Amino acid sequence: MYPHKRARDNMTKWVYSFGDGKAEGKADMKNLLGGKGANLAEMCALGLPVPPGLTITTDVCTYFYQNEKQYPKELEKQVNDAIAAIEKTIGARFGDPSNPLLVSVRSGARASMPGMMDTILNLGLNDETVKGLAKKSGNARFAYDSYRRFIQMYSDVVLDVDHYHFEELMELKKQDRGIELDTELTADDLKELSDSYKEKVQEETGKPFPQNVKDQLWGAVGAVFKSWMNHRAITYRKMYDIPEEWGTAVNVQSMVFGNMGDDCATGVAFTRDPSTGEKIFYGEYLVNAQGEDVVAGIRTPQSITKAARERGGSKLPSMEEVMPAVYQQLVDIYKKLEGHYKDMQDIEFTVQSNKLWMLQTRNGKRTAAAALRIAAEMVEEKLITKDEALMRIDPASLDQLLHPTLDPKAKKEVVAKGLPASPGAASGTIVFSAEEAEAKAQKKEKVILVRIETSPEDIHGMHAAQGILTARGGMTSHAAVVARGMGKPCVSGAGDLQISYDKKTLKIGKLELKQGDTLTINGSTGEVMLGLVPTVQPALTGNFEQVMKWADDTRTLKIRTNAETPLDAATARKFGAEGIGLCRTEHMFFDAERIIAVREMIVSKDVEGRKKAINKLLPFQRKDFEEIFKIMHGLPVTIRLLDPPLHEFLPHTAQDIADVAKAAGVDIETVKHRAQELHEMNPMLGHRGCRLGISFPEIYEMQAQAIFEAAAKVNKEKPNTAVIEVMIPLVMHIKELKTLKAMIVRIADEVSKREKVKLDYLVGTMIELPRAALRAGEIAEEAEFFSFGTNDLTQTTLGISRDDAASFLGTYVEKGIFEKDPFVAIDEDGVGELVAIATERGRKTRKDIKLGICGEHGGNPATIHFCHRTGLNYVSCSPYRVPIARLAAAQAAIQNKSAKKKAA
Amino acid sequence: MYPHKRARDNMTKWVYSFGDGKAEGKADMKNLLGGKGANLAEMCALGLPVPPGLTITTDVCTYFYQNEKQYPKELEKQVNDAIAAIEKTIGARFGDPSNPLLVSVRSGARASMPGMMDTILNLGLNDETVKGLAKKSGNARFAYDSYRRFIQMYSDVVLDVDHYHFEELMELKKQDRGIELDTELTADDLKELSDSYKEKVQEETGKPFPQNVKDQLWGAVGAVFKSWMNHRAITYRKMYDIPEEWGTAVNVQSMVFGNMGDDCATGVAFTRDPSTGEKIFYGEYLVNAQGEDVVAGIRTPQSITKAARERGGSKLPSMEEVMPAVYQQLVDIYKKLEGHYKDMQDIEFTVQSNKLWMLQTRNGKRTAAAALRIAAEMVEEKLITKDEALMRIDPASLDQLLHPTLDPKAKKEVVAKGLPASPGAASGTIVFSAEEAEAKAQKKEKVILVRIETSPEDIHGMHAAQGILTARGGMTSHAAVVARGMGKPCVSGAGDLQISYDKKTLKIGKLELKQGDTLTINGSTGEVMLGLVPTVQPALTGNFEQVMKWADDTRTLKIRTNAETPLDAATARKFGAEGIGLCRTEHMFFDAERIIAVREMIVSKDVEGRKKAINKLLPFQRKDFEEIFKIMHGLPVTIRLLDPPLHEFLPHTAQDIADVAKAAGVDIETVKHRAQELHEMNPMLGHRGCRLGISFPEIYEMQAQAIFEAAAKVNKEKPNTAVIEVMIPLVMHIKELKTLKAMIVRIADEVSKREKVKLDYLVGTMIELPRAALRAGEIAEEAEFFSFGTNDLTQTTLGISRDDAASFLGTYVEKGIFEKDPFVAIDEDGVGELVAIATERGRKTRKDIKLGICGEHGGNPATIHFCHRTGLNYVSCSPYRVPIARLAAAQAAIQNKSAKKKAA
Repeated sequence: MYPHKRARDNMTKWVYSFGDGKAEGKADMKNLLGGKGANLAEMCALGLPVPPGLTITTDVCTYFYQNEKQYPKELEKQVNDAIAAIEKTIGARFGDPSNPLLVSVRSGARASMPGMMDTILNLGLNDETVKGLAKKSGNARFAYDSYRRFIQMYSDVVLDVDHYHFEELMELKKQDRGIELDTELTADDLKELSDSYKEKVQEETGKPFPQNVKDQLWGAVGAVFKSWMNHRAITYRKMYDIPEEWGTAVNVQSMVFGNMGDDCATGVAFTRDPSTGEKIFYGEYLVNAQGEDVVAGIRTPQSITKAARERGGSKLPSMEEVMPAVYQQLVDIYKKLEGHYKDMQDIEFTVQSNKLWMLQTRNGKRTAAAALRIAAEMVEEKLITKDEALMRIDPASLDQLLHPTLDPKAKKEVVAKGLPASPGAASGTIVFSAEEAEAKAQKKEKVILVRIETSPEDIHGMHAAQGILTARGGMTSHAAVVARGMGKPCVSGAGDLQISYDKKTLKIGKLELKQGDTLTINGSTGEVMLGLVPTVQPALTGNFEQVMKWADDTRTLKIRTNAETPLDAATARKFGAEGIGLCRTEHMFFDAERIIAVREMIVSKDVEGRKKAINKLLPFQRKDFEEIFKIMHGLPVTIRLLDPPLHEFLPHTAQDIADVAKAAGVDIETVKHRAQELHEMNPMLGHRGCRLGISFPEIYEMQAQAIFEAAAKVNKEKPNTAVIEVMIPLVMHIKELKTLKAMIVRIADEVSKREKVKLDYLVGTMIELPRAALRAGEIAEEAEFFSFGTNDLTQTTLGISRDDAASFLGTYVEKGIFEKDPFVAIDEDGVGELVAIATERGRKTRKDIKLGICGEHGGNPATIHFCHRTGLNYVSCSPYRVPIARLAAAQAAIQNKSAKKKAA
Repeated sequence: MYPHKRARDNMTKWVYSFGDGKAEGKADMKNLLGGKGANLAEMCALGLPVPPGLTITTDVCTYFYQNEKQYPKELEKQVNDAIAAIEKTIGARFGDPSNPLLVSVRSGARASMPGMMDTILNLGLNDETVKGLAKKSGNARFAYDSYRRFIQMYSDVVLDVDHYHFEELMELKKQDRGIELDTELTADDLKELSDSYKEKVQEETGKPFPQNVKDQLWGAVGAVFKSWMNHRAITYRKMYDIPEEWGTAVNVQSMVFGNMGDDCATGVAFTRDPSTGEKIFYGEYLVNAQGEDVVAGIRTPQSITKAARERGGSKLPSMEEVMPAVYQQLVDIYKKLEGHYKDMQDIEFTVQSNKLWMLQTRNGKRTAAAALRIAAEMVEEKLITKDEALMRIDPASLDQLLHPTLDPKAKKEVVAKGLPASPGAASGTIVFSAEEAEAKAQKKEKVILVRIETSPEDIHGMHAAQGILTARGGMTSHAAVVARGMGKPCVSGAGDLQISYDKKTLKIGKLELKQGDTLTINGSTGEVMLGLVPTVQPALTGNFEQVMKWADDTRTLKIRTNAETPLDAATARKFGAEGIGLCRTEHMFFDAERIIAVREMIVSKDVEGRKKAINKLLPFQRKDFEEIFKIMHGLPVTIRLLDPPLHEFLPHTAQDIADVAKAAGVDIETVKHRAQELHEMNPMLGHRGCRLGISFPEIYEMQAQAIFEAAAKVNKEKPNTAVIEVMIPLVMHIKELKTLKAMIVRIADEVSKREKVKLDYLVGTMIELPRAALRAGEIAEEAEFFSFGTNDLTQTTLGISRDDAASFLGTYVEKGIFEKDPFVAIDEDGVGELVAIATERGRKTRKDIKLGICGEHGGNPATIHFCHRTGLNYVSCSPYRVPIARLAAAQAAIQNKSAKKKAA
């Protein structure tokens, strides 16, 4: 149920017309008309050749779901009026047996959702109008082929009659006629086929196939609205954070035909290369085909430009060569569109009897590399500003650029080649279905999804896979478009692949691979390789550095990283981290050399035993800090003292238990008994964090000593190397912090005196419990910085254990209780308010308190926006998310600027 | 370290004098002078005979701990001046060999802490002054006995020389002289003994026993201050919620002697009977004894009044008979004191050579029954107002009255008899040490602590035991006083008991009992019985009902109860509950008949299976609610839908697993697998509360159906019987509540239609997660009431699992990080702020929203005060705490009234 039914007066405009160089809508009415409808109107108004049509607004969709799937009562008349306008423009009439108007019905949501919504072509055909079409086109075969396609499509989408019924009838007909190809069927065959299709519909639904064209139209419109709530659409919205409330528009547009003969064609194109961003006109087309044929990947499409054909080594002629005049018209249009929209456009067109019709334009999806290049070059071209360029790039997409590519020196056995559909390299075991891909991914197995071609049903599997490999389909096939959107490597149209879903095998010539075998694909080259090929770190240069520099100049938030190994620290520094926001010392405890001492410490029941074991750890820990201080030279390093409960370090195997018993000089039973003692019902809320520091001060004393001794050493060698921030976890009460800070200060003084160096450092705390957030004013009396541990703060504020959430969180997101997983993007209403409260109270006590966030939310763009608005000083995230955070922080600053401007 | 060192000017008054009918202090200066010092000053000012003295203020104690155990520099001069005043009044001089002034040094904290602090008598004696005392008193034996006692006491307390050293020397001397009793030692013997005592001190400490009386004095003062931080003192403060910051004062007072001959005596008395509250003068004294002898329980004391002697059947003469004139003077004084303080007084006195001296007065500790009777009778006597009477009674103490007493019809084998030292009956297994008592209590075993006599070291064991039985000591012995304070049954001075700590046996004549045998004691009669004697519910009449009626007239908070069984509901109603605030439906699931169906439901993996199992539960659940509605007739019943995670209901034994498998028609492996699936890392933060209602709606549907069908039935029989409040647990998001409320409303409508009855009900939610508290404004759009689940809210706000807190919470309370266990008294700063936020935001949205608390804090007086201040409508607590809550709520209302008056 929707909360509020909106009252509407009778004058509401539910329908917007376009056509004949005029339009009631325009590009900035996307919320109302959907992306497709708004752009069709805009193109019309620009004077481009657009088949006339009408758009039913997204408000109708909202009304539909608010009113038990009823339409507003004024809708019918408004649609009829708009159709009359189309009839006038086209010179044909809807349902007129002698001169029928045919239309397409398409969805059009606010955000582009490729392939997710249902489309119906050739609507308006019935037993009478098909004759008119045959006569008018002079092509009976075309007319009956259109009719039987329409019956199949409409029945599948609107009447819920599965398409395999029709495919069976088609097969039977071909066997009957002793032929192999659809194209060998005659007009009569197709007429008979359309009759048997209609019979099948009667059989399956108990009702005849609708002959009234108005009934057909309303059936199709209803199907579009209903498809807004189908499973695929919901999945897609969830994946791309599109609110359910937006709804979809419906576009009804007069048909143009690319399949009426060899002077007809249909195609899709990008105004720049969507893979690389190179400024070339780039696209594919098919002669004598309907639009869906190009993206469906059933026929291998041809290049639009001659240059592209030559570069691809294809023998199929380009559109530039086949239809030079129409091609030139298309070039003029694409330039006009890109200049008008100031962004790379993804366009669809149809040529009917040598006349060009524009069917769609929209901002084109692109890889991260392309996004960077296009944004940077458009700034150079003075098409857009730097701020606009920064806003154009989806920060999350940068992830694609940061991950490894194939090691050029590695040996590789290339067994097949396809199209370089989405760049990047990926290895994994082969799976043949989306379900398998998802199941294995849940077990942390890396998989390559291998499909003949992909469809919207496969999206969840593509999401789960490392990469996608298809046997059919071009660069604009479903697999290619979706993979680029996801930033997943994809090789499409590798024609040598013979895939059997039944046997779960993949044959390439004589080679036969089974499910579970390992493949590597290179989406930048189209290569398919046997086994796992090693990878190397990507070089981040050129556009990347340019755009990142603009981002750094723009943002006010500092970006730090969560790192505790020298490798992570170095990687993060390379990616632009401005310090370490979270160095988890416990990760340093698991090293084989150290874990025994750690366990010995845990098993000891008295202070003396613990101290003895802990002293063995001191030199290791000191060395760790020395290295990290050196790598981060001059940048702050926030070191968190031991946080997890001690039982996390306990031995499990008999051998390990025996080793610990020996090291600690106790018997095995004692070790087991201690393990039992330490067991906790809710370890998340147990004896951990600074509670350990209070109970076993000797642990934190050792860690403090290691920190200050390491700092003393590196600073003696090279002054100002170590910039120390000591962080105390899980504080809930000022007295905890007071006790532990006094201890840290004492040890710093001791080391300083002994080593004869001055040691500067801050002592601060994590704010990761609601009580700490509420008492931040008091806690700031001692704490010199706060780092919001939003993982734990989310767990406690929402009362959700991340380890156990799987059993219900899925349901919660599905049922819309949470719009997003609160462990991915911060829950601004709940956890966010606590962060804001702590920020305000902390600053009130200590004006210059340093505030940051170090939960995993730190690398989430939405959360970074929140942190900017809330006034934190920095976010800290994993090394690979540092560039994402830099860009997101810049976008937050730009948005804030423009929001301020608007407010002023 | 203390946070702020207070700057003090030179004019600070650190010392207050009293004596000779004048005093610088008075009774309302307890914070500065401590209870004893303030009352000594007050008695002085009232013209009562008080030995002159001085009080060093509690501020000195604070200064002492803030300044590394140094004193303020003005202190010495102020003490010297005050001593000069004493010297002038007494006509003797401190350290004067011919006419020495002797003093006692005693602690005196703001709240009475009996036996917890150290006392030194006879200070001022040395090798010279002892001669002066002998000459002045004409009693050399008395002088040397005093000296050797002083050396022993001072060495033990100040110089840390254990007292057994001196006891050994005493034994040797007696063997030497061939005598058995101390009293047979001559003056010379005692002189020699004091010499050997001094040698022992030299031997043990390496220094001579201090001869300078000023050194003696400062040593004693320091010892008092240091004892503020000793283990016993800390334990006592923790038990009685006394803040460490209060500090103690030191009282230095000129000695008077009750042990100078048979015209001397010492005693303690109460102005009313502290056990029953009866208005009789009640006390004990000893002829020729020092004050400590009475309370130490070494000699059996005599009654003060003749009537008491006769009632007790004692042959030892009463003070009334032995010293009629002094007795009459004492009677005049006690009446004056009770009239002056308007409360029952606990007084100490000494008679030196037939002259009466008052050493102390304070409000007397009393049993709950006595507190009620005294308060009620003092109102009748127009000594105090009803409000004052209500404020006099410690709500927690009522607990004593509510618990069972011995069934008068039960057979009982009385094996011994002692004094009825603290009323109530208790049964348990025998233990002989505080440590054993504590260890067994932790295992939930009920124990009776059996001791020859008790001392402050035993307090933690007394706390852990059900009751205390001692072989020695009177009605004012340590055991009796402490037990009454705790509300524990106690039988003291059962002289037939022969206790061996070594053998862990208790002999009574020929009967020998061992540790682990069961005893029952009746603290109201002094009877000791073999085995477990059955008990009955107490009758709550007379003063109890009177006082409770006053409380009900005064309070504004409603009191409800947490109950789900008919017995609990009936008990709570009898105790005055005004509704059920928390009826936990899951407790109804564990019944043998039902648990199989519950488990069948859990094991089912689909909705159908779950529904089948759940339908078996429906009739049971409906019957539960019918009964409870009938018992609570016309009072609201808040029913909480299922809350705990499903795995709590899982079977553990092989037989149970097999039974469930059979019932559900699955194999054993399936049951085990399901158990594994349901296992959670942090069940507290897991799949529970309304999350179950979202995932498995059929469970809540059944519960709602049971509630409404039960209500329909009972209301048809007798209108307005069921007053329904349906409560949804663990809500964190408005959408959860919206979804589930819609379901409940739907089912109510269905039942209402089917049963043709109108059903009134409220739907509300627990506020037990920080997010729910923060979003209360939004949640109140749906919720018609909030019930604060402060158990879970404490766990999440503080990040502490109650199940796991034991490993560190003790340390936290000990180290003073928490003043109180936050699961006992609400953490007002953290959890309390969330409650206040939710109250404010909830009321803003829904002005008449009903607000209550149903955590275990609901029965805690401090929390009840908080709830009153915060403006909640009710508290809900366990049945036995309902009277406590009624009184605490009245006190909160009175305090609030007087606070408002002050503010106005």
